[in-house]
Amino acid sequence: MNQLDKDTLLCISLSGRPSNIGTRFHNYLYGELGLNFVYKAFTTNDLQAAVGGIRALGIRGAGVSMPFKEQIIDYVDVMHESASVIESVNTVVNEDGALHAYNTDYQAIANLLRDNVLPHSLSVAVAGSGGMAKAVVAAVRDYGFTDVTVIARNETTGGAVAKQYGFAWQPELGAARPGLLINATPIGMAGGLEAEDLAFELDAIDAAEAVFDVVAMPAATPLIRAAAERHKTVITGAEVIALQAAEQFVLYTGVRPSPEEIRRASEYSRS
Amino acid sequence: MNQLDKDTLLCISLSGRPSNIGTRFHNYLYGELGLNFVYKAFTTNDLQAAVGGIRALGIRGAGVSMPFKEQIIDYVDVMHESASVIESVNTVVNEDGALHAYNTDYQAIANLLRDNVLPHSLSVAVAGSGGMAKAVVAAVRDYGFTDVTVIARNETTGGAVAKQYGFAWQPELGAARPGLLINATPIGMAGGLEAEDLAFELDAIDAAEAVFDVVAMPAATPLIRAAAERHKTVITGAEVIALQAAEQFVLYTGVRPSPEEIRRASEYSRS
Repeated sequence: MNQLDKDTLLCISLSGRPSNIGTRFHNYLYGELGLNFVYKAFTTNDLQAAVGGIRALGIRGAGVSMPFKEQIIDYVDVMHESASVIESVNTVVNEDGALHAYNTDYQAIANLLRDNVLPHSLSVAVAGSGGMAKAVVAAVRDYGFTDVTVIARNETTGGAVAKQYGFAWQPELGAARPGLLINATPIGMAGGLEAEDLAFELDAIDAAEAVFDVVAMPAATPLIRAAAERHKTVITGAEVIALQAAEQFVLYTGVRPSPEEIRRASEYSRS
Repeated sequence: MNQLDKDTLLCISLSGRPSNIGTRFHNYLYGELGLNFVYKAFTTNDLQAAVGGIRALGIRGAGVSMPFKEQIIDYVDVMHESASVIESVNTVVNEDGALHAYNTDYQAIANLLRDNVLPHSLSVAVAGSGGMAKAVVAAVRDYGFTDVTVIARNETTGGAVAKQYGFAWQPELGAARPGLLINATPIGMAGGLEAEDLAFELDAIDAAEAVFDVVAMPAATPLIRAAAERHKTVITGAEVIALQAAEQFVLYTGVRPSPEEIRRASEYSRS
């Protein structure tokens, strides 16, 4: 790490359950790129006062995780499109006292769809109806997909997400065989109750052209492994988390790391 | 420096014009002692919101400098004796959300008087009437000196400090030849208008047994140099600043560094 001095800028994260990933990712790149920044994760019982502290102390930026992504909208000054399109903030940048809000999850998902040059004609199924599903469905719509179904057992939340972006909702995939399968549920997440499960059945994976899993830990979820074995195009949650962190990094520092630097920082952050 | 993680505790300073000294002193010792802490200096235009941020983010401690030492009294929960005796706070410790206030300048001065075993019978002159003079006069009283005169051109502030602690005030030293001379003015401070000046005349220094200068930069002020050349007992502002920072360090971390560690951290912080 760099030696801190009075001019060092602080970036933080606010989350219900802080992890080490952001702290390690950002501090690694500050060191590699010789930037006078330091990053540290926080939790809080008083989001409003925490945001007041960001202003009063001149904290440069804040990553925002569950359960603060919606609540913080009340305390920021400028909602940028990436946040307003899904009414969810995961990044706050302090520009001389004005707090600008972004959602780099949305940006990362949109960039990954674009980078993989997926054909607009593909039919798409998105499993899930939480905050990440909202980011996925908005990015899928904005990319240009038109045949999209939200798959969620919960009709209230699933139906709402589908309706908000003009798509259909179904409780289960049933006999449909979409070209692009996207998992935006916690199924396959290490340590979870469904760590060994697949968000989609094997014959749906067989029939798909591409599979996208937003679960980041592990990078090779059961879904990603099944899709890779079948030689499908795969996009992993590890790519989402690295790319969204890289977009945060750019917003905080004004410096864009190279893809190789992002890869190394991402690897380090997960080690 | 240590690698930061989600459990790293943050300590900060709040001051009108942050310097690097505290940041370097504390981070040096965190590294040496392998403590999972990080320290960073801040300034603020909104002290109340900054203190709200200390609470909401669980910031462990805050050093407080001019111009916030009196104003912050309104925002803390517990005033400890070192702060209440001079109505001035230079250290805040967050104990599970309760903000405890101390003044380690007072503690450091009291400890230095004690460690030098100065006889209670000495007559004492304290030059100055600002915040540091208050800490000195209170420590001098609590050490047990009874023949004390506050020397300050400004009758309003000088008279008030003297009266508050039951001592005399004079605008100038005049013909008095006290046994202990203490400078609590900025005279002799590097970069100041009076950097080359002496707070006391040479014949007063000749007549004194001991000389104490609270100016910390440089350690060897003109007053300290003159006293050392005359083989007087000397106490320097560099000792005050190192000892007060060490007391802060103990309050924040619960760990007391060795005198040698404090000396090295102090040297590093001033390099």
